[in-house]
Amino acid sequence: MQLFIGNKNYSTWSLRAWYLMSKFNVLFDETQLVLDTSDFYDELQKHFTVQKVPALIDGELNVWDSLAICEYINDAYLSGAAWPKNTHDRAQARSLSAEMHSGFMALRNEMPMNIRATRKVELSLAAKKDIARIDNIFANQQTLYPNSWLFGEFSITDAMYAPVVLRLKTYQISLSPAAEQYCQHVMSCKVLQNWVTQALTETDIVESDEAGVEV
Amino acid sequence: MQLFIGNKNYSTWSLRAWYLMSKFNVLFDETQLVLDTSDFYDELQKHFTVQKVPALIDGELNVWDSLAICEYINDAYLSGAAWPKNTHDRAQARSLSAEMHSGFMALRNEMPMNIRATRKVELSLAAKKDIARIDNIFANQQTLYPNSWLFGEFSITDAMYAPVVLRLKTYQISLSPAAEQYCQHVMSCKVLQNWVTQALTETDIVESDEAGVEV
Ligand SMILES: N[C@@H](CCC(=O)N[C@@H](CS)C(=O)NCC(=O)O)C(=O)O
Ligand SMILES: N[C@@H](CCC(=O)N[C@@H](CS)C(=O)NCC(=O)O)C(=O)O
Repeated sequence: MQLFIGNKNYSTWSLRAWYLMSKFNVLFDETQLVLDTSDFYDELQKHFTVQKVPALIDGELNVWDSLAICEYINDAYLSGAAWPKNTHDRAQARSLSAEMHSGFMALRNEMPMNIRATRKVELSLAAKKDIARIDNIFANQQTLYPNSWLFGEFSITDAMYAPVVLRLKTYQISLSPAAEQYCQHVMSCKVLQNWVTQALTETDIVESDEAGVEV
Repeated sequence: MQLFIGNKNYSTWSLRAWYLMSKFNVLFDETQLVLDTSDFYDELQKHFTVQKVPALIDGELNVWDSLAICEYINDAYLSGAAWPKNTHDRAQARSLSAEMHSGFMALRNEMPMNIRATRKVELSLAAKKDIARIDNIFANQQTLYPNSWLFGEFSITDAMYAPVVLRLKTYQISLSPAAEQYCQHVMSCKVLQNWVTQALTETDIVESDEAGVEV
């Protein structure tokens, strides 16, 4: 199985699929492509109609899009273990994951993931609302599952929100204590730390993702 | 079970969830709210943290977002029947659904669904690329499953792309013969026709969705 990803420093969607697979010890070969280069598109074009990362090849099968990859892995390799076991939590987990997958546009635009940089940005009202909503999600789930993943056990939803946790940290956003507690839980995860360590060694620059001023 | 939806004339995401549930004969009460009114937000606020449609209440359980609702219904009521049975098609179907859920921004912005209106719009290059990609998806699947749904049997992916079929028609976009054939298959579906018939009786106007010039 071969997972195509982008720069670890910048590629939030890549991180989501990579994190899910790594955390569940699903074995894969990793092919890293540098965003915004012609090599990126040339290489993906050989295998995929859509040239975006993450993208997965498993034998005869191509899967593209982070959420589709997570659902595929859950389905084909994990017998459903990547979603919460009980129906109630599973419905919530899917709603939150879909909310991330299709939304938080202001936050995504104004706070591009950039693991290497510690920066501050001026945020629009819309981005502040996105952050308030995320604080609310994290804090609520910590009340239900203290010092733990969003639904107790690690799930696809934690993978979907991991890039946001990294952004909240590097852009130095203050959160409620309960939301902060969830972020610390995520940051203490060895698998995520591996991604971050590798991101810190990268040197390629994607100009459009270099928002904010150094602090 | 109670499904909250928006105007049938305009609300693409509502149509997706409504179509899936209706087509699979999953019984629900429908609560229709008029987009862009204070009543819309007041009513949703009583039940949901996120005030968007579609949104579903099933007993103790709240599900929001079209894709999460489709997955929930598939999971809780259909024993998986809303996705293709074979792993290969299921992975493709999930990728295509996720692609719709998170993408096609130019098409979505420039061709808002407006079932009542027959219009023409000037399209950007990005929107033309979106249309070419959709033509390609429909045509490919018709080669595999002629005169049929995208994966032979009706699936979540058909529900996800149904609003696009309606837009291609009302904005009078020409397609390849194979893609056109898929659109005709969709348009001949009685359940979809019910939605369209109800949309045609609506009179509320959402200004921002009134793109294009009458033809
Ligand atoms: N909805 C897709 C989004 C994937 C995506 O936009 N990936 C970015 C990198 S994080 C990309 O490949 N960008 C290159 C491009 O759009 O040309 C997913 O969830 O995987
Ligand atoms: N990602 C969501 C999008 C839902 C959405 O944006 N719905 C629109 C109507 S089609 C809405 O509720 N708009 C009201 C608003 O955003 O204030 C889904 O898939 O359900």
